[in-house]
Amino acid sequence: MSTPRRAVCLVSGGMDSAVTLAEARALGFEAYALSARYGQRHEYELAAAARVAEAGGAKDHRIVTVDLGVLGGSALTDDIEVPKDRSHDEMGSDVPVTYVPARNTVFLAVALGWAEVLDATDLFLGVNAVDYSGYPDCRPQFLAAFEALASVATAAGAERGARFTVHAPLMKLSKAGIVQRAAALNVDLSLTLTCYDPVPEGERVISCGRCDACQLRLAGFAEAGTTDPIPYVS
Amino acid sequence: MSTPRRAVCLVSGGMDSAVTLAEARALGFEAYALSARYGQRHEYELAAAARVAEAGGAKDHRIVTVDLGVLGGSALTDDIEVPKDRSHDEMGSDVPVTYVPARNTVFLAVALGWAEVLDATDLFLGVNAVDYSGYPDCRPQFLAAFEALASVATAAGAERGARFTVHAPLMKLSKAGIVQRAAALNVDLSLTLTCYDPVPEGERVISCGRCDACQLRLAGFAEAGTTDPIPYVS
Repeated sequence: MSTPRRAVCLVSGGMDSAVTLAEARALGFEAYALSARYGQRHEYELAAAARVAEAGGAKDHRIVTVDLGVLGGSALTDDIEVPKDRSHDEMGSDVPVTYVPARNTVFLAVALGWAEVLDATDLFLGVNAVDYSGYPDCRPQFLAAFEALASVATAAGAERGARFTVHAPLMKLSKAGIVQRAAALNVDLSLTLTCYDPVPEGERVISCGRCDACQLRLAGFAEAGTTDPIPYVS
Repeated sequence: MSTPRRAVCLVSGGMDSAVTLAEARALGFEAYALSARYGQRHEYELAAAARVAEAGGAKDHRIVTVDLGVLGGSALTDDIEVPKDRSHDEMGSDVPVTYVPARNTVFLAVALGWAEVLDATDLFLGVNAVDYSGYPDCRPQFLAAFEALASVATAAGAERGARFTVHAPLMKLSKAGIVQRAAALNVDLSLTLTCYDPVPEGERVISCGRCDACQLRLAGFAEAGTTDPIPYVS
């Protein structure tokens, strides 16, 4: 039996990254899950990432601190209010205030560092069509530019001609499509957390249901005709 | 009087970044100094970075934690021994063990995040000809690939067509040339620290004089015909 190829998979703890990890495994990769502590408002996201990595069969899971909050500039890391109850038009009209500057660039750069250590040339990132309406670093041309960078930035590329691939298996899926893909791959979405502004309640964490991320998630389940297994503020 | 253009300048506390900061200021930029706490063995480097940023007239200085040490893979962050007394041929023969995977990619990505917050499109990095013999992420093609990435990764690039420039003013200079440039720009090199393995002695920090970085630095001063103002283990 040949050694399975390794891949570094960015896992945020959200639904998209859980499905992305499952796609990496379904392609036969040995998956190394990577999460970032980047100054987000809550640590619940990292707890969800650990659950998702374990349930998803990751070989290893590391959390790297990258405190982008020091640089300011986003509602996810600053004291700017997380927007609630926005319409879909409002969400898609421009770069959202929840945009963290250069976040995917930073996360992919860290993933590239781990890939070098692991001798891997495949990276997985759970960006998708709904996200890239407003976030510049969720677009296919961004991923292509990162692949080009990786091939000149690394010892593997510079010395051995290795070429890197940034896989974004959800790129063309709607949220409903992601929910359906999760079912097909037996991904337990009850372990995931999407909300920008969750509320602790005993040992559980309750999602707000009103931020952009919750609204997109709930719309995805509704469109897929299934029920979201996580609890929401009623 | 017009508003000065802003630039983010990576400042490690070494000689090269001190001169790079001075070059940015000499070009008329308002400089924002950025340092990374990346799991390096010692914090003396960050203390030097703060001195260099202040003496160099940086408008602001931020230290971002990016604990690449979690990922392993380098003598600068691992327990691998820092090599000493290597010949110049040994240093240049391949990627050094002091190479931190994807370090410059990660640092530039974080700098790009700050640049977005500051509405800046210029980044300064103190890489030079001596370094890029062994480090893939110190070569001109790496910087060009990062510029291309930055222009698609950011809101400024995606929405307003901004193009980013990664300035590497030392790229073609030898260490002796950097020492001479420091003198021309009145950079106080006594504030800088280059050593991979320095020793504390009271309130001072003494450089080992034997690691690759110390050897290259000392050779630069010798070739420039001047004396290094920092203390070395005798």
